[in-house]
This record gives sequence, C-alpha cells and structure tokens, in this order.
Amino acid sequence: MNIKDIKQWKCDPLDETTACRVLDHGFIRYVDHYGDDQRIVDSARVSYQNGTRKVRDNEGLINYLVRNKHTSPLEMVDFLFHVKAPIFVCREWVRHRLVSMNEMSLRYSEAIEDFYTPETFRGQDKINKQGSVEAPELDQEALRESYRGICSMAYEEYKLQLEQGVAREHARMVLPVSWYTTWYWKCNLRTLWNFIELRGDNTAQYEIRQYVEPITHITRAVVPITYKALMEHT
Amino acid sequence: MNIKDIKQWKCDPLDETTACRVLDHGFIRYVDHYGDDQRIVDSARVSYQNGTRKVRDNEGLINYLVRNKHTSPLEMVDFLFHVKAPIFVCREWVRHRLVSMNEMSLRYSEAIEDFYTPETFRGQDKINKQGSVEAPELDQEALRESYRGICSMAYEEYKLQLEQGVAREHARMVLPVSWYTTWYWKCNLRTLWNFIELRGDNTAQYEIRQYVEPITHITRAVVPITYKALMEHT
Amino acid sequence: MNIKDIKQWKCDPLDETTACRVLDHGFIRYVDHYGDDQRIVDSARVSYQNGTRKVRDNEGLINYLVRNKHTSPLEMVDFLFHVKAPIFVCREWVRHRLVSMNEMSLRYSEAIEDFYTPETFRGQDKINKQGSVEAPELDQEALRESYRGICSMAYEEYKLQLEQGVAREHARMVLPVSWYTTWYWKCNLRTLWNFIELRGDNTAQYEIRQYVEPITHITRAVVPITYKALMEHT
Amino acid sequence: MNIKDIKQWKCDPLDETTACRVLDHGFIRYVDHYGDDQRIVDSARVSYQNGTRKVRDNEGLINYLVRNKHTSPLEMVDFLFHVKAPIFVCREWVRHRLVSMNEMSLRYSEAIEDFYTPETFRGQDKINKQGSVEAPELDQEALRESYRGICSMAYEEYKLQLEQGVAREHARMVLPVSWYTTWYWKCNLRTLWNFIELRGDNTAQYEIRQYVEPITHITRAVVPITYKALMEHT
Repeated sequence: MNIKDIKQWKCDPLDETTACRVLDHGFIRYVDHYGDDQRIVDSARVSYQNGTRKVRDNEGLINYLVRNKHTSPLEMVDFLFHVKAPIFVCREWVRHRLVSMNEMSLRYSEAIEDFYTPETFRGQDKINKQGSVEAPELDQEALRESYRGICSMAYEEYKLQLEQGVAREHARMVLPVSWYTTWYWKCNLRTLWNFIELRGDNTAQYEIRQYVEPITHITRAVVPITYKALMEHT
Repeated sequence: MNIKDIKQWKCDPLDETTACRVLDHGFIRYVDHYGDDQRIVDSARVSYQNGTRKVRDNEGLINYLVRNKHTSPLEMVDFLFHVKAPIFVCREWVRHRLVSMNEMSLRYSEAIEDFYTPETFRGQDKINKQGSVEAPELDQEALRESYRGICSMAYEEYKLQLEQGVAREHARMVLPVSWYTTWYWKCNLRTLWNFIELRGDNTAQYEIRQYVEPITHITRAVVPITYKALMEHT
Repeated sequence: MNIKDIKQWKCDPLDETTACRVLDHGFIRYVDHYGDDQRIVDSARVSYQNGTRKVRDNEGLINYLVRNKHTSPLEMVDFLFHVKAPIFVCREWVRHRLVSMNEMSLRYSEAIEDFYTPETFRGQDKINKQGSVEAPELDQEALRESYRGICSMAYEEYKLQLEQGVAREHARMVLPVSWYTTWYWKCNLRTLWNFIELRGDNTAQYEIRQYVEPITHITRAVVPITYKALMEHT
Repeated sequence: MNIKDIKQWKCDPLDETTACRVLDHGFIRYVDHYGDDQRIVDSARVSYQNGTRKVRDNEGLINYLVRNKHTSPLEMVDFLFHVKAPIFVCREWVRHRLVSMNEMSLRYSEAIEDFYTPETFRGQDKINKQGSVEAPELDQEALRESYRGICSMAYEEYKLQLEQGVAREHARMVLPVSWYTTWYWKCNLRTLWNFIELRGDNTAQYEIRQYVEPITHITRAVVPITYKALMEHT
C-alpha cells in the first residue's frame, strides 16, 4: 500500500492499493464498496413497482427520495475503509453505532512509537467551551518539544515494561490518547452521510474533520448522483 | 430473470439472473454479495496485527474466531437478496432488525392476484401450541378450494374498489396475509447466521423454512470456510 | 383496562389502567416510562461536567442540546406502549428498527373476529401516487357492506378450518391485513420523535397518523420541556 | 453519592445514592431500572395471548423463554448505570453497540489528575497471546513508581499547556489511556447479559471483569427469576 498525498488522492479515490495521508502519520484507505447509484434506484423501485411506471430517470428518482427523506434505499450502499487515526479521534468515531468495526488490539500486538503531533497547537475558545481558536501567541516550537518529550518517555516506559515481562494489556496503559490505532470500518451510505454531516461540521475537532474530506471524495466517486442530491437537500 | 427450480439452483447459487422458486409463487434471488472468507481474515488481522505473525492459515484463523465467538469480523460480509414471499412470512422476517430492507408498497402500486396456497394444509399440534403436524384426515382438496375461493373473492373486492376510485392504500385492506409481497434484503453474515439458525429450526413455520435452504446454499458458496466453521461450532 | 375516548385521554395520558381508543377497535395504552426532562439533563451533564459550571437551567440546556442536534441524551428516556392496530398499520410501524417489540402471534393464539372498517373510504390521489383524497362520489354504505362481507367470510373460513383441525399457523393465512393485532412497544425518545415526525406527516396514511396524536400527548406529559424544544427546533 | 465497598454493595445494589468502588478510583453506580421479571412475563403474554391460558406461573414461563431462546421480552427491561473507569476499559465497553451512552468530554471539561494504577502488574501470557498471568518475578514497587511518574508528568504537561492557553481538546492528547473517564450507560437486559458473558469471561482483561461483578449483583436484584434462568440455560 502506498501512502499518497491528499492532492493525488483526488485523482483516484477508489484505488485500494493507495491510502490518503491524513494528519502526520494517519491515513484513510478505500478498501471496497458495495452498490452505487443504480443499486439505490433498483432498491427504491422494489417499493414502487409499477407505481413508477411512468418515465422517471435515476437522477429524478434519487432526488425525490432524498428530498422526501425516503432514505432507506441509501442503506443498500456500503463502504469499507481502513483507517489509521489517533485514539482520541477513534473514540469520537466509534460513537456512530450502526456500523461494523475491527480495531487493532494492544492486548494482542505490540505498539510501535507512533503518535500524533499537531502541526499547530490551537488555543482555547473562550466563548464556545468545546471549541478552539487560532492562537498566534503560543510558542509552537516549545509546545511541540515538551509534548513529544512526554510521548516518547511514555513509549520508553512501555518498552521497558515489556522487556521486564509485563503483559501487553497492562503496559499499554501508559500510552497517551495521541497514539495511533487502526481499524476496518464498514458503514452504509445513510450512516456515512450522518458521519460526514456531524464530523465535517466546523464545531467538530480539527483532527477528525481531516478524515471527512477524503471520505467525501470517495462518496462522490461511488455515488455521484446521490452525493449531489444529498448536498442539495440536507 | 429466470425462475429456476431449487435443484438447478444448487449448481449456481450466485447467478443473479436467475431466482430460486420457493413455495408456489415465491422466490429468492441472489443479487450481490460483498466480502468473502478472505475479507473476514483481513478484517480479523487488523485486530491482531503482528500478534498473529506466526503462520496460521485462513482456515485456522476463521475456526479460532468462530470457536471463540469473536464474530465481529463476520459483519464485514454482506448479502443482498431479492425475496418474494407471503405477507405472513414477511412479518416474521422483519423481526430481524439489524438489516436493511425495501419492500414493495401497496400504497404506490397495484396488487395483482397472487397469493400462496399450501400444497398441504397441516393440522394443529396438540402439544406444541405454536406447531403443526401432518394431518392425513384433512380433506386437502376441499380445503384448498374454499381457501382459494375466499382469496379470489377478496381480490375481486379489491379490484372493484379500485374501479370505483377507492385509494390503493384503503383497497388493500381486504387482501389476506397469504398475499405475496417482495423486498430487497441486505444482511451481514453475523445476522444472517442468526436468521438461518432461528428460521431454519424445526420449530419455525414450514413456509419460512423453505427460504432458509437456498439462503444456506448461497452462504456456503460465498464463504465456504466460514460456513463450515459455523456449522461445526454453533 | 378501560378504553377511554381520546378527549378524556387528554386529561391523563399517564394512567396505565386506561387506553385511548384509536380507529374503530384499536387502542394505544401508556404502560410505563423511564426518565424525564431531568434525566436528559443529568445525562448531558455527564458529558459536560465542570464545563457547564456556569448557571444554565434545565430548559436552557435542553434547548441547547436540541438546537445543536446533540440528541444522544434523548435516548435515556424510554416509553412503553401497548398498541392494538390493524396488521397493515403494524407493518409500517415495525420499519422503525431501534425499538423492542413483542407482538401477538396467531401461531399461538386463536384470532377473534376483529377487523378494522374505515369510517370513510378515501379516493385515490391522482397526483401523489401514494396518497388519498376525499371522495364524496363514493357510495360509503355499499363499500362498507361488501368490505365487511368479505372480512366476515374470511373469518368464517378461518373458523371452519380450525374446527376441521387445521393448524392455527395455516388457518390464519386467509385473514385480511385489516385484522387487528396487538403488541408491546418500547422506544426511546430519540427514535420516538423520528416516528412522530414520519408517521405524523400528512403524507403518512390516515390510519397510522391516528396513533401519533395520543403518542404526542404522552410525550408532552412525560418530557414537557424537551417536547417544546423539539417542536421549536425540528 | 457515597462510595461503598463492594462487600457493602451486596446489601443494597439498588441504592442510587451510593456507588460501588471498582479498581482504585473507579465506580459503578446503579441509577435506575425499568421493568422486572413481571414486565418480561407481561410482554411475553402479549405474544401468546389466550395461547397460554393454561396455568403456567412466571418462573415456568421465563424458563421456557430462556431455554428456547425467545429472548426478545428481555429487551423490555433496562438498566441505567453511572460508570467511572479507565479509558482503556471504556474503549472495550463501547464495542457493545445496542446501548445508549453519554460520556464525559475533555473538550468541554478540564481533566483532574486521576488515573488508574494496578495493584499488581501482570506478566505476559506466552501461550494466550492476548492474555496475562501472575508474575511474581516482577518488581511491583519499581514498576508502580515509574508508571506513576510518567502519568504524573503527562498531567503536569497537560496543566502547563492549559495555563499557556492551549485548547482543552489539544492538551488532552498527552493523557494516557489509564486516565479515568465517566459515562451514563443504558442497556437492556438482553444486551446486558451478552456483556456479562463476554466481559465476565476469564479471557477478558482483569480490569473490565471487576465491573461485571457489581453489574451481576444488580441484575440479580432486579430480575431474580430471569437471572436464575439465564445462569442455568446459557
């Protein structure tokens, strides 16, 4: 698997041999999809049968479905992603429950030194209690250095414990939530759209929003007509 | 789409241009699937990472997963079916909730005269209150005739109401639950296996059990290794 | 349990010894609820902890949650209903999947002669293919008579089959979808609100909309502040 | 709320003003429940109606349900817990999806110095790759000291960043997964039993298993008959 830059990604979001880099060491990789605009149309036509005998093209039907919130046919399209993101991002991600997921386990496998460092630490938003703002007054260099120092020390402690024979499931406790983890994520289009809306919103944390951009590209590539309808009507 | 007999079905359960006849006018048609034994293995290996570095082949890993009830990777495989069955069968089918479904609506489209007639009416089981038994004393010919008579009269009433301008959503009320309906049904392997176990059990009604046989064939064709493991360990 | 008219219902929607009559023989009965506005607030405060230290009263917090679509605390409130409705209504009802349900089974128990007759048959809407309109030209008297005739004949056939020893699970096949069924239905407030929006909409069939009115009354009685917020912001 | 020792807990698991201490600083607190053995029976009787007219007492009916895997009536009973556990425990907990949850957010609120220290670090199991074993050779004193040192340094870094004006959502990244978090958790009995079986199993990590014991006590107190049936038949 080759990690590609997000700009290249835009060319071929459906190449499963490449992954789109997100954040400093994270990625999102398209693995597979299932169904497309036509599948949505086929599925909707099961409901309507000869009730839609009059000519209505796919685009018209999909627009009708989305505009009237008949979104159950959207569940017939699935996406499978391979994601690598920091634990604190993963913890927001898993709140979306109508999905299937298999995550790397640090009970089974050994962690490597692989944590996220923000390009820019952001300042606390004084008004929006859960938000952040640009903070030119922060000494980024110093912040990064002390932050990375702590993360590295945590990893050294982890390694030391393993060397002494401590169980992986115990040794991992010292690792910060900045640590990268990876998972397979299967999600239908209805749930995915909800994810895009919530996690792409500008009240969502910057880090999770970076994953929404490539997801949006893939969605558009797989179901261009439905994507357009969703953008217009939601 | 050609309706094939179940015996032919066994030859190619994954041909989406054919459907397997079930009951007198029903069918189940394989439309598509998503993922296979390899997908289950790939997904499980995300959890284990280098923790499974030692050589363990796919069959060994799948057996391990199923035997230890680590069945979340089974959710990574999906099946899409097109089903035609009587309403009373559909009503049992929809109790399985972790699926996606689009059913024909008689608010939109007009019903045709299409109802299920059992080859053999069964007798009430005196011990198992929800069960049935063979009943050689029943006059099948007479039962069938009067049963079909009522169903046809119901349909005539339906047609008559439509001719008078009654709304389809009202006219349908007179149709018996023996009427055929159709739906698209997407279901992951974990839920599908639960369906197979529950609806294939000999306490399930004969009519729904007939759909379990072709579903089982398709499952075996798509995920032969996992199928074998599930048969052995559940 | 006493069946009360919907007008009386309005006085005490939370009396579980009474049920609200819906349609001709249907009802909806409040059985229990779990949690209230305060529960939603408590649950949200777990997320915010000392982040909401500044004084914000319950109403302010609930409005904030609903306005910003932070609706997961709404899942902490549950409602339990006992419903009796025609099968064709039940079939729309069960499409809402994130609920728990136990329905009467005609495999176990014997049906009585109990079907729905509309006060007024409605006409087919020519524009909205799934809709209906008032149809003064219809001969209601005649429609009702022939409709009831078919339903009664179906029931006679059902009884006759039972007398001959046919299994209940087979004999039921002749009963029309107008037949009444009953179920217990547990549903959290988030899903319930979705139900109210979809099934209370004027594109929903008249018959299911009649159940939405008492459900709405009960919702308002249990969570008055949240109800108000939902009405305003959705 | 008073934190009680688990031994006292056994006396009154349903007192919501107390919480049961789990691990060093964690707890689980019963907040409320909804439904009981009688509710399960009432709900099942909706399915059976006059089909269960013959005398069968509650215990007999519940045993029948559990033995025959008719477990949908178990969904009618809900439990609400308030949990405090380390993040790495929470991350296993959230894999159970058919529940409702509201977790403390470190985007909103400021963390205090509150992390888990194991009484005894365990050794890596050489055979079971995900397991741990007792390891008398480990120098517990030294392990604890260096482990706590890293956790405290991480917290100091966190505080320092906050003082400099870094956003809470960024500053939290340095905190280890040993950090305590809290959440409200609503779960029906069917899902809860699955949780008890999986997380109480001796292949589950020691830390999550400690929460299963008080959950089991509460379950037994709320639904004694069903608890007994589940213990016997699953």
